[in-house]
Amino acid sequence: MNKNSSNIMALAPNTPNKRETVCIFGTGDFGRALGHQMIQSGYPVVYGSRSTQISNLIPKDAEVLSHAEAAQKAAIIIIAIQRQHYNFLTPLAEILRGKVLVDISNNLKLNQYPESNAEYLAQLLPGSRVVKAFNTVSAWALQSGTLDASRQVFVCGDDVEAKQMVMNIVRALGLTPLDKGTLLAAQEIENFPLQLFPMWKFPIFLSLGLTTFFFLYCLALDVIYTYIYEKNNFSFFIAITIPNRVCPVMALILLALVYLPGIFAAIIQLYRGTKYRRFPDWLDKWMLCRKQLGLIALAFASLHVVFTLVAPLRAFVRWRIGKGIVSQALNNKTEPLDSTTAWISDSYLALGILGFFLFVLLGITSLPSVSNNVNWREFRFVQSKLGYLSLILCTAHTLVYGGKWFLSPSAYRWYLPNIYMLSLVVPCAVLVVKFVLIFPCVDKPLTQIRQGWERNPKYS
Amino acid sequence: MNKNSSNIMALAPNTPNKRETVCIFGTGDFGRALGHQMIQSGYPVVYGSRSTQISNLIPKDAEVLSHAEAAQKAAIIIIAIQRQHYNFLTPLAEILRGKVLVDISNNLKLNQYPESNAEYLAQLLPGSRVVKAFNTVSAWALQSGTLDASRQVFVCGDDVEAKQMVMNIVRALGLTPLDKGTLLAAQEIENFPLQLFPMWKFPIFLSLGLTTFFFLYCLALDVIYTYIYEKNNFSFFIAITIPNRVCPVMALILLALVYLPGIFAAIIQLYRGTKYRRFPDWLDKWMLCRKQLGLIALAFASLHVVFTLVAPLRAFVRWRIGKGIVSQALNNKTEPLDSTTAWISDSYLALGILGFFLFVLLGITSLPSVSNNVNWREFRFVQSKLGYLSLILCTAHTLVYGGKWFLSPSAYRWYLPNIYMLSLVVPCAVLVVKFVLIFPCVDKPLTQIRQGWERNPKYS
Amino acid sequence: MNKNSSNIMALAPNTPNKRETVCIFGTGDFGRALGHQMIQSGYPVVYGSRSTQISNLIPKDAEVLSHAEAAQKAAIIIIAIQRQHYNFLTPLAEILRGKVLVDISNNLKLNQYPESNAEYLAQLLPGSRVVKAFNTVSAWALQSGTLDASRQVFVCGDDVEAKQMVMNIVRALGLTPLDKGTLLAAQEIENFPLQLFPMWKFPIFLSLGLTTFFFLYCLALDVIYTYIYEKNNFSFFIAITIPNRVCPVMALILLALVYLPGIFAAIIQLYRGTKYRRFPDWLDKWMLCRKQLGLIALAFASLHVVFTLVAPLRAFVRWRIGKGIVSQALNNKTEPLDSTTAWISDSYLALGILGFFLFVLLGITSLPSVSNNVNWREFRFVQSKLGYLSLILCTAHTLVYGGKWFLSPSAYRWYLPNIYMLSLVVPCAVLVVKFVLIFPCVDKPLTQIRQGWERNPKYS
Repeated sequence: MNKNSSNIMALAPNTPNKRETVCIFGTGDFGRALGHQMIQSGYPVVYGSRSTQISNLIPKDAEVLSHAEAAQKAAIIIIAIQRQHYNFLTPLAEILRGKVLVDISNNLKLNQYPESNAEYLAQLLPGSRVVKAFNTVSAWALQSGTLDASRQVFVCGDDVEAKQMVMNIVRALGLTPLDKGTLLAAQEIENFPLQLFPMWKFPIFLSLGLTTFFFLYCLALDVIYTYIYEKNNFSFFIAITIPNRVCPVMALILLALVYLPGIFAAIIQLYRGTKYRRFPDWLDKWMLCRKQLGLIALAFASLHVVFTLVAPLRAFVRWRIGKGIVSQALNNKTEPLDSTTAWISDSYLALGILGFFLFVLLGITSLPSVSNNVNWREFRFVQSKLGYLSLILCTAHTLVYGGKWFLSPSAYRWYLPNIYMLSLVVPCAVLVVKFVLIFPCVDKPLTQIRQGWERNPKYS
Repeated sequence: MNKNSSNIMALAPNTPNKRETVCIFGTGDFGRALGHQMIQSGYPVVYGSRSTQISNLIPKDAEVLSHAEAAQKAAIIIIAIQRQHYNFLTPLAEILRGKVLVDISNNLKLNQYPESNAEYLAQLLPGSRVVKAFNTVSAWALQSGTLDASRQVFVCGDDVEAKQMVMNIVRALGLTPLDKGTLLAAQEIENFPLQLFPMWKFPIFLSLGLTTFFFLYCLALDVIYTYIYEKNNFSFFIAITIPNRVCPVMALILLALVYLPGIFAAIIQLYRGTKYRRFPDWLDKWMLCRKQLGLIALAFASLHVVFTLVAPLRAFVRWRIGKGIVSQALNNKTEPLDSTTAWISDSYLALGILGFFLFVLLGITSLPSVSNNVNWREFRFVQSKLGYLSLILCTAHTLVYGGKWFLSPSAYRWYLPNIYMLSLVVPCAVLVVKFVLIFPCVDKPLTQIRQGWERNPKYS
Repeated sequence: MNKNSSNIMALAPNTPNKRETVCIFGTGDFGRALGHQMIQSGYPVVYGSRSTQISNLIPKDAEVLSHAEAAQKAAIIIIAIQRQHYNFLTPLAEILRGKVLVDISNNLKLNQYPESNAEYLAQLLPGSRVVKAFNTVSAWALQSGTLDASRQVFVCGDDVEAKQMVMNIVRALGLTPLDKGTLLAAQEIENFPLQLFPMWKFPIFLSLGLTTFFFLYCLALDVIYTYIYEKNNFSFFIAITIPNRVCPVMALILLALVYLPGIFAAIIQLYRGTKYRRFPDWLDKWMLCRKQLGLIALAFASLHVVFTLVAPLRAFVRWRIGKGIVSQALNNKTEPLDSTTAWISDSYLALGILGFFLFVLLGITSLPSVSNNVNWREFRFVQSKLGYLSLILCTAHTLVYGGKWFLSPSAYRWYLPNIYMLSLVVPCAVLVVKFVLIFPCVDKPLTQIRQGWERNPKYS
């Protein structure tokens, strides 16, 4: 934390303007956008450029000088040029000694270079204090002032004081700096804006694939079969009836897939007798996307709830109910209430409601701001205990709903089972194995293994 | 970062109490509340007051001394007096030299003085290290200990070490300090507690105005017209039927108004051939309240969903359905299922459900803790792609719902269109213009302009 | 902030590896898990152990040395041993002088020792710089890399630079450090992971108790009474009908209990004429769990909404509606629409929807990330104004729903009132007293008291 005079000036200004001058190398789009915004926040801005003739693109109140002259005017220099041109900075090394250089560059693809741009800059100019910042902010967002998106700016650097100076600028622009540590974090920070939901890709493709399969399966059994053998045109089932069969099936299967890798992990650990060997790669990846699988399952469950609740508004349902009542009236009789039917109807609805309620609770606790407020013990309680309870309730909901049709031959059109039967395979398997795993004779060695015990400690 | 002896004592205490003594100037309500709380957190507190006789209002364990004596006992002095009386501190300048002065004052209205209170204090006592803090905390909340509200305390100041000392006190009181940078941020921090949803004012007034208009419009067409011409008393429509017409209309219009300013901005940029000129003021303001407009639209959409789902529970709906069935039974016939009606009914429900589902997703990603976890690219994807998809689905939902009535004269009571027709104007306009804007011949120059290209670079 | 050579080396490394060596004392489960993770993040790790023969359990790339040798190799030493064995460190005091010691220990129960483990360590080794960290992270979570839970690591310590060094390691492991201030915070940090929803215990037990009571009450009146006196087997009411009576009752009572302590507090303050005396203990505790009570009330209200909306899907409801229509058809008449019934039905539904809507808004603003973005004035506006409005709407919803039965003798089976009558007692009491409290003659002295005025300032 050596202090040169320029920094002290920067930290304790006594000019009327009170903000320290900032130098920007490069007059490209982002350099101009950042300059605009800094001038509006009260910073004197000086551009370092090859051609010092003032272009109209550059903010009016900014000065434009040669690189060397501009650098001498400020303690902080923002390097708004591309990595390929960084080596032109080496002749300026003496002038840039002790200055804070802010690397704002981004790459075009993940891990494009062996080292991050900021570390490369620090190697080129070992006398300067390099700070990585601003690369996660979009020029368009800065310019238009419509920062609805994240206001977080990741900052990293080896020099604590230099980082503080940059973080003060970030705050002055109305953004929130987030200290990510030393310059080693620059690689991660440079990769961040290039991602498009990386953790969501596998769960989403899996869901799309399964959804398509189940949709076509239902289309065949419910629309095409009916049309061929019963001459009924139920093509409008495509809009609500079939989605409302596919959604609960997807929700149940995905929810079971959230808990399946934990089962596999337990079995592998029991078999190996140690927790100190890595899981197979596929299992590692699967475990890392459990949260995403669970949230997609919740989305399907929510759609199922709404699709179910609109049923009484559907013309088809009203017609069917009306037909039933009219036929009772025409037959001059009132059907008595069947207590068993009432029990089945009410209990599968109640099981579904409670299962969905717990599922929504799980979803709320996975919101970042909520999960940050619970400790590990509380998180485990919610995600494991309540999660399994939700899985049990949802499986029971499906079993009670479809129970009576399991043995009925009419449920097997083209000798194929209805999809809710398919949906029960994974959840039932998970629940049965989990039930075995909580027996004391299995649970005790597993707990010991997870606490670090090894069956064959001499394992090389 | 010069260190005087008192600070070193403060940072490395070896007294049994271990907390450094804090001095509070002023025995007003907030000074007393803060003192109470600090004593409970283990800080020795000494009050500086004009009259040193111990008042009963002051916490029992606190000492009361003259200002000069009290200041000498502590490294941190909390200035719990009003800005108008700050100048009485100037005679104490020598005693306060090097001390950390914490300005906790608030003003009565926004931007009451040219400079912030904290900056004014720093000007009066240039030898002291002024830190702004605690002004966002309410005395009542501190006293009653019921801090359900935000626990964040904004802290700013030019001296990093002084800021650290104050932030340690903030943490000890169970609050969360948030470093807002140098003392220049004090103005913003002082304005913060005076605001009452400033970004929400325009969207809420706009919504209230439009809601009132549409409510009266529906009241005239649905209740008054029916009463005059059909002698039916449908006044109970005020409770559910009319709200359930107004809510979807408001949701659709407000959602379209979220995307309209982006359309205007694109047209203006295409016309001007540059992005380096400010948008008109009204457009800037509009763009800044898009998130609020979207959330209000989501609120209306949610109300529409619930109002629609309760329909089968309404006495009126049950009576109407019962009447239809009874008349079928009395006419001794069963109406066959009309496949077209079933298609229309199911598809507008399905479109509405999917549109609402995407809308809720948009709402969830606008939660601060979620949007902080996505990068700019992901945010743009969700808010722009999914947002437009949601707008398309909701517009299609309305079109399918009302399609058959567009050409029916009975839909034009008093020659006025039904409100769902009115609600389609803005969304359809937005979608049509957006459709034009994504044509390559329009999209290409627009993208270039947004990347910094200019059609007339010599524009002065 | 004195700098010894090892730290400067640590902050500005020029080795190819670039991460400073970290020493871990203790080869227990957590020490091994942390070592594994640090090696993966690029830190050279050296273990200090009594037996220096390399065990297979220890990560392959780590060195194992005696405590003294290991300590000399690193500037940061992680103390992964239990508090009972801390005193074996005293002979190493000279070697550990100036080093950063990271206390990661946890206790088995809350406040097990008079001082925190970290403070005890700092007392034993006054020359070392003790930092508390990592105790909130689970070894299992570190090992399996599935950190879906909170990534926050609380860090505290008296030495700012030592804290920075530890926070850099935390960040390098992909976790988020949270500075909790000086070592005095260690007690709180050590207690944190031992808690299991401490604030939720009382509200949950209260809810369970009340729910059980109301469930049995309903069971007696709706199922057993009907079975005895009307010979109807309505046992299936247990699944939906009774839960849907208990849920709204619980929601309304708990919502009223959120606002009741505020009423008590106001009355106590008015009676005492001062705010400077502590409330009774029970009231303090009650006020602190208002948020939890409110969220449980919201959960009951949400269940009530879903239970109500599924009504048209229930076999029992369909049978009852069908029976009514068939009897109309058999009697050859169509019942006319009763406008009063339509009004009552629609208005209690509308009141319920609006009350629930405001209730959900309250719930959303209590999400940590949302409440951190509103100031005290806005929070008070939402929680107090909107909260009372929600309570008024929900109470009115219940009154309109049940109004006509209050005077009907058939509503009093076994001379007991229906539970919705019981549910109205607390909310009506709260609303009546609140109505009195906002009269100017009561509100004015109360406001004065809350601003610090005292009726009897000489009170000793």
